[in-house]
Amino acid sequence: MAAVKACSVLITGANRGLGLEMVKQLSEVPCPKRQIFACCRDPDGPKSEKLRELAEKHPGIITIVCLDVGDPCSIKESAKKVSSLLGKNGLNLLVNNAGVLTHGTMQSTTDQEMRDAFNTNLMGPFTVTKEYLPYLRAAAKASARSGMSCDKAAIINISAGLGSMTQMLSLYSHFSTFSYSVSKTGLNMLTVYTAIELKQDEILCVSIHPGWVKSDMGGDKAPLESRDSVADILQVISSLTEKQHGGFLDNTGKTLPW
Amino acid sequence: MAAVKACSVLITGANRGLGLEMVKQLSEVPCPKRQIFACCRDPDGPKSEKLRELAEKHPGIITIVCLDVGDPCSIKESAKKVSSLLGKNGLNLLVNNAGVLTHGTMQSTTDQEMRDAFNTNLMGPFTVTKEYLPYLRAAAKASARSGMSCDKAAIINISAGLGSMTQMLSLYSHFSTFSYSVSKTGLNMLTVYTAIELKQDEILCVSIHPGWVKSDMGGDKAPLESRDSVADILQVISSLTEKQHGGFLDNTGKTLPW
Ligand SMILES: NC(=O)c1ccc[n+]([C@@H]2O[C@H](COP(=O)([O-])OP(=O)(O)OC[C@H]3O[C@@H](n4cnc5c(N)ncnc54)[C@H](OP(=O)(O)O)[C@@H]3O)[C@@H](O)[C@H]2O)c1
Ligand SMILES: NC(=O)c1ccc[n+]([C@@H]2O[C@H](COP(=O)([O-])OP(=O)(O)OC[C@H]3O[C@@H](n4cnc5c(N)ncnc54)[C@H](OP(=O)(O)O)[C@@H]3O)[C@@H](O)[C@H]2O)c1
Repeated sequence: MAAVKACSVLITGANRGLGLEMVKQLSEVPCPKRQIFACCRDPDGPKSEKLRELAEKHPGIITIVCLDVGDPCSIKESAKKVSSLLGKNGLNLLVNNAGVLTHGTMQSTTDQEMRDAFNTNLMGPFTVTKEYLPYLRAAAKASARSGMSCDKAAIINISAGLGSMTQMLSLYSHFSTFSYSVSKTGLNMLTVYTAIELKQDEILCVSIHPGWVKSDMGGDKAPLESRDSVADILQVISSLTEKQHGGFLDNTGKTLPW
Repeated sequence: MAAVKACSVLITGANRGLGLEMVKQLSEVPCPKRQIFACCRDPDGPKSEKLRELAEKHPGIITIVCLDVGDPCSIKESAKKVSSLLGKNGLNLLVNNAGVLTHGTMQSTTDQEMRDAFNTNLMGPFTVTKEYLPYLRAAAKASARSGMSCDKAAIINISAGLGSMTQMLSLYSHFSTFSYSVSKTGLNMLTVYTAIELKQDEILCVSIHPGWVKSDMGGDKAPLESRDSVADILQVISSLTEKQHGGFLDNTGKTLPW
């Protein structure tokens, strides 16, 4: 099995769910000079206890960073801390994972729910991407590899099948998540623009749908364990090339329709 | 040529550009009991002068209504006025046309530009649709026709090719409009949800891209005159059936990829 060899990785929403599992699996794979920036909005709070335990097990590898993706100041502050710890080789892999979901039809969704989804799921990745771009560029420049890969410089936007216009028709009878769907299709447009604009810098960018996964968000009925989804995602990530640049893939590597 | 026979039509952003042209062409076609609600945010201001002149030429047909799609109170107020003028037969056709465009790459776009596009291009149609739904439902119920058509009950969301993830790859070298593209792909998701939720009410909903059109937004270099784009759009609208429900069409009736 291929492994992600990116030296430095930053993951948002890393205190529970898929983000925490990704930190766990990345820290377990031996990889020289691995630095994992595990970001969460309340590092000292009860919801980050498991992440703190994990960081203690892997000293020098996992750094917990305070980052609320809905707050531009917090994003700026986080970059100050991360950049002070990053070497000249920059940041190899940014995973925009933090997200929120509210269930609701188009008709029942409130303005506030729309704004919350927009802020976290779209403005979050947008602002984080812009803030960390200099460090991703540094990584792309520092790399001796030609072409694109996640070990060199990449942005993974954790999107959702529910953000696919094409798939909504069949998904709606089971899931009605209007504000979430709108924000995730917007995130997919962010992926497309980012891919176009960063192509010359050789920074890879894709949207990934993790599958329907057991987590606070996915619920108990989900067929996938977060352990399996994250193993899949890391496998897909490790094999990405310019071929998938700007695309929308699921956890098995299959291309999804917009 | 087929003509739109919807008795009552409401159009947002009707004081200039495509909206004004649509009011003009609809008011010129003889149609018994036609009621056109031409909405704009400043009915008495200088930017609405042409609309006022047009309304004077067609008394009893065109009613100018104050409606700022970015302001939920204004949307509510407009519906009070419109509903007092609508008969029991409700509102046949809602055209969510008002929109704003700012040029900019993903990297140069500001938070404020994102919020402005989100408010006008997405929250506008979302809130207007919810507010006018009872009158569209009334129209669908009052109609003797079976199936779906724009003469019975329909919502047309004026979207854009720049909101298509698939088309962005080729469009980007000419147009970089990040906030606009994100808001229009969100609008397309609104079309999909609206279509699913209103299917049982037999209210038709589609996204239409008007082509690249000469207007304040489209600029001088655009190949299409607004007269021709609107004639095309009205032709497409008049022939819509359940086949196109939930779809994304251009001014020639061609289906666009999301
Ligand atoms: N689970 C699924 O079936 C599924 C399917 C498709 C896509 N996804 C996507 O996968 C990603 C992870 O989902 P999950 O299942 O792990 O969800 P989850 O268990 O609900 O975890 C969400 C994570 O995002 C964080 N978060 C939310 N708002 C934040 C903010 N403003 N700033 C920083 N962090 C924030 C949460 O932190 P707090 O603890 O502070 O709230 C938490 O760490 C999301 O983008 C989600 O949309 C999940
Ligand atoms: N022209 C093109 O090439 C093209 C291409 C694709 C899609 N479109 C879409 O077609 C639609 C019409 O565009 P256009 O070319 O006619 O643009 P335009 O000439 O710039 O006119 C825009 C219209 O929207 C109104 N508007 C903006 N914000 C509003 C608000 N908050 N409340 C109410 N009205 C508001 C404007 O009113 P004010 O006078 O008060 O500002 C104006 O009437 C838009 O949705 C646009 O995105 C146009």
